[in-house]
Amino acid sequence: MKGLLVALAGGVGGAKLAWGLAQVLPPEKLVIVVNTGDDAVFHGLHVSPDLDTVMYTLAGIVNPEAGWGVADDTTAALGMLGRYGAPTWFRLGDRDLACHIRRTELLGQGWTLSQATRELCLALGVQHSIVPMSDDSVRTTILAEEGELPFQVYFVERRCEPPVREVLYVGAEKARPSPLFEAALNEAGALVFCPSNPYLSIDPILSLDRVRQRIAGLTVPRLAVSPIVGGEALKGPLAKMMLELGEKPSSTNIARHYEGLCDIFIIDDVDREEAEEILALGMPVEAMPIVMRSPEDKMELARRVCALAGY
Amino acid sequence: MKGLLVALAGGVGGAKLAWGLAQVLPPEKLVIVVNTGDDAVFHGLHVSPDLDTVMYTLAGIVNPEAGWGVADDTTAALGMLGRYGAPTWFRLGDRDLACHIRRTELLGQGWTLSQATRELCLALGVQHSIVPMSDDSVRTTILAEEGELPFQVYFVERRCEPPVREVLYVGAEKARPSPLFEAALNEAGALVFCPSNPYLSIDPILSLDRVRQRIAGLTVPRLAVSPIVGGEALKGPLAKMMLELGEKPSSTNIARHYEGLCDIFIIDDVDREEAEEILALGMPVEAMPIVMRSPEDKMELARRVCALAGY
Repeated sequence: MKGLLVALAGGVGGAKLAWGLAQVLPPEKLVIVVNTGDDAVFHGLHVSPDLDTVMYTLAGIVNPEAGWGVADDTTAALGMLGRYGAPTWFRLGDRDLACHIRRTELLGQGWTLSQATRELCLALGVQHSIVPMSDDSVRTTILAEEGELPFQVYFVERRCEPPVREVLYVGAEKARPSPLFEAALNEAGALVFCPSNPYLSIDPILSLDRVRQRIAGLTVPRLAVSPIVGGEALKGPLAKMMLELGEKPSSTNIARHYEGLCDIFIIDDVDREEAEEILALGMPVEAMPIVMRSPEDKMELARRVCALAGY
Repeated sequence: MKGLLVALAGGVGGAKLAWGLAQVLPPEKLVIVVNTGDDAVFHGLHVSPDLDTVMYTLAGIVNPEAGWGVADDTTAALGMLGRYGAPTWFRLGDRDLACHIRRTELLGQGWTLSQATRELCLALGVQHSIVPMSDDSVRTTILAEEGELPFQVYFVERRCEPPVREVLYVGAEKARPSPLFEAALNEAGALVFCPSNPYLSIDPILSLDRVRQRIAGLTVPRLAVSPIVGGEALKGPLAKMMLELGEKPSSTNIARHYEGLCDIFIIDDVDREEAEEILALGMPVEAMPIVMRSPEDKMELARRVCALAGY
C-alpha cells in the first residue's frame, strides 16, 4: 500500500463513496478533497454545503432522507429569521446552523477554511481528512438563459429550473489549492473522481490554479466513478444540465469529460454496452453495481475502487 | 398631554413597566431607552440582552417563566455549538439566536444598533420605540475581589457570586446617546426610571457623555420606581450588591442614588415608613403596590406613573 488515496468529491453522491472509502481505508491513507464552489453567505454566516454534507455523512449524523443536513433537525431559528425579514429559501436547520455560526466565528478570528473544517470534523469525531479544495473564494455561477445566477439561487431557490448555457467558476484561476490538497497531490498513491456532478462538483476543483495540469501529470492510478446510470443522474440536475449543454447524458460523455485525467472508468453494469466506446477514449472500463443505497453498497463499491487503485 | 414620556430601563423589571406603559400610552408618546452595557459577543454574534428582553416583552413572545428569552424556545443549535467546543453557559435558544444572527448581519452591513433594533422591533409588530441608550460600545465590567469580570461572566457564568467592589462602564464617557435618545431628551415631557438595578441597568445610561447633566437639568417631572421592596430586590443581585458596596438594601438608598435626578420617588406600600427619610432628600414619595406579577399589575402601576407624570 502506497501513498494517499485522494478522493475528489462534491455533495451527496461524493459523500456516499467518501463514507465507503473511510470504512475501508485508515485515516492516514485517505484525503477527501471537497468542492467549495457552492459556498455561500446566508444571514452573514459562511455556509459550505458540500463540506458539511461530507462531514455530517462521515460523522454519522447526516439526515438520511435528504442526504444533507443533520438528522432530526428543527427549523425554529429559520422561522424567526423569516419573521425578521431574512430570506429563508435556503433551509438551514437549528443543529446545522451551529456549524455555520462556529465556522463564521473561526473565520472571523483569522482561521482558514481548512483549519475551521478540521476543527469542526474533530469535534464530531471524524478522523479522516476532509479538506476544502481551496481556502480562497471560488463561486460557481450559472450562466443561464436569463443571465448569471449565483449557484445556490440556481440550485435551491430556482430548483435547477433555468436552462443552463455555461457554468463559471468565478475566482478559480487565482485560487490556490488548500495546503492539504496540495500536499495530497504530492503524496498521492491514487486519485478517485467520486460520482459527483462534473460541472458543479468536480470542475470547480479542476479549475483551481494548476490543478488540472497536476492531475493530468499524475502517474499513479486515476479512477472515476460515473455519476450517470442508464442515462439518468443518480441525484440532482446532471442529466438535465447535460442536455441543456448539448450533450447526451451518458457515462461515455462523462468519460469524455475526464479524458486525459483518468485511467480507469467505472460504470454501472447496466451501461456495459458503452464500455467499448469509453475504451476508445483510452480508458479501460470496469463495470459493477455503482448505485449506493445501503451501507453495504457503499463499502462494496469503495472496496472495488480501492482494489483497482492497488489499495 | 405634553412631549414624550422617556422611560429608562434595563432587563426584566424595566421590561415589565415598559410593557405597562406601552398599554397606556400611544407609540408617539413613549420612548423606552434601554441599557446596552450588558451587550456581549457570543459565537461571533452581537447579543443585546436588555434590548431583547424589552422587545420580546412588548412583542408578547417573551418566555413568561424566565422573563427573558423567547417563549417555548429550544436549544438545538446551542447543543451543537457545545459539541463544536464553544462555551454554552450563556443559554441562547434557537428562536432567540435568530435575533442575534439577524442583528449581527445588519450591523455587519453598516447599520447602527438603533437601526437594527428598529428593524427587529417592527418585524415583531412592536410599534412603540425601543431605543438603545447608545450606538457606541459601552461594556459594564464588574470589579470583583478577584479582579475585573466582563458583565455576562459575572452575571450568568458566575451567577453573581463574586463579591463586587465597583462597577465600571468601560467606554461610557466617550459614548454618545443614540440619536433617538438624544431627541427624546430634547422633547421629554417626563422621565421615568423603571424599577431596574441602578448599578447594572441605569448607571450605564447615566454614564454616557453628558446624559447625567442633561437629566439633572430637565425641568419636566422625573419619577423613579424603586427596585427594592421590603429590603429585597424584586429580581437579580441588587440587594446582595448593595451590601457588598456597603449600602443597606433599601428604597431610601436607591432614592439617594438618584438624588438631583428625580422629583417623585415611588415605593411599595410595605416601605411607607421610609417616606419621611426620602422626602428629606428632596423627593416627595408616593407609596403604592409596585410588585408587578400580572398584566393588570403592570398596567395599574403604569397608569399611576403616567398620572403622576401628568399624562
